[in-house]
Amino acid sequence: MQGEPEVAVLRLGHRPGRDERMTTHVGLTARALGADRAILAGDASKSLGTVEDITDRFGGPFEVELTDSPKAVIRDWPGLVVHLTMYGERVQDVEDEIRDAHGGGDPILAVVGSQKVSFDVYEAADMNVGVTNQPHSEVAGLAVFLDHLFESRELEREWQDADRRVVPEATGKTVVPTDEE
Amino acid sequence: MQGEPEVAVLRLGHRPGRDERMTTHVGLTARALGADRAILAGDASKSLGTVEDITDRFGGPFEVELTDSPKAVIRDWPGLVVHLTMYGERVQDVEDEIRDAHGGGDPILAVVGSQKVSFDVYEAADMNVGVTNQPHSEVAGLAVFLDHLFESRELEREWQDADRRVVPEATGKTVVPTDEE
Repeated sequence: MQGEPEVAVLRLGHRPGRDERMTTHVGLTARALGADRAILAGDASKSLGTVEDITDRFGGPFEVELTDSPKAVIRDWPGLVVHLTMYGERVQDVEDEIRDAHGGGDPILAVVGSQKVSFDVYEAADMNVGVTNQPHSEVAGLAVFLDHLFESRELEREWQDADRRVVPEATGKTVVPTDEE
Repeated sequence: MQGEPEVAVLRLGHRPGRDERMTTHVGLTARALGADRAILAGDASKSLGTVEDITDRFGGPFEVELTDSPKAVIRDWPGLVVHLTMYGERVQDVEDEIRDAHGGGDPILAVVGSQKVSFDVYEAADMNVGVTNQPHSEVAGLAVFLDHLFESRELEREWQDADRRVVPEATGKTVVPTDEE
């Protein structure tokens, strides 16, 4: 989030056709829950387009980009690389350490896979962290990780350059153009 | 979770073929993050099978079932029905009320859609709640909702009747049979 060291999300292992929706959900979750940038490995141009379109309409700042060299992204990351995996250390045991690093100025790269992630990612990451040690969803794991990292401050995030804004309400679906506000 | 009023997740709008993976992720996220049961509307038998298989291997208690009458599930629910939607009230504004209801004995039904959810669900729900008012992922919204509802207690949940257990560790992928413990 703005005024804080960067938090980026690296999505590994995208398979065109098969993973479009999950990769799009990773990107949109990164944006909605306080990350600054999503980096999608491989030919994820459809997901990229959807995330860009949502950012154009609902605001940012948020960047999304493709990479052909996800291992270089990990290797060259200037801060802490946190690989989210069901085999990792328990998030509740290590989140203070991650928050301290972030608060102390380290950019955070959260890495999420799709299917099997090669073992060199486990070795290259600074930390392997599990949001539970149960099989579930990389989208769910990322969501809880970001919410814990930001201690729910991301829920109060304000958006810039949006065309429209949803008005939260008990029953209804109200979207207003932001230029009327 | 055991010893508490039930928390169930109702997945609406499953389209066979198209939604298998998302519906499976909804079911697995419900299980991993402390819900007691997932109810999948429509012909979601493949997702049901996957969630049952994970429960057999990694433990429970957790139930998963199909329904042809999701609106009856909502109408007949004996406690609080919370529909998760980007148009709803902000989760941070209403989560205390939901936790109080749950702590006071009310079973909670969390309802998540896939694509467009018909407006009668908004009207039938006791509360419409947004995990941000941004478009992202029903899996991410469900994950943050459950984590807030349980105040992260679900991360400490213990599993019964599991064949195997992942050993959390800094670098590695260690799974042990539970009968060796």
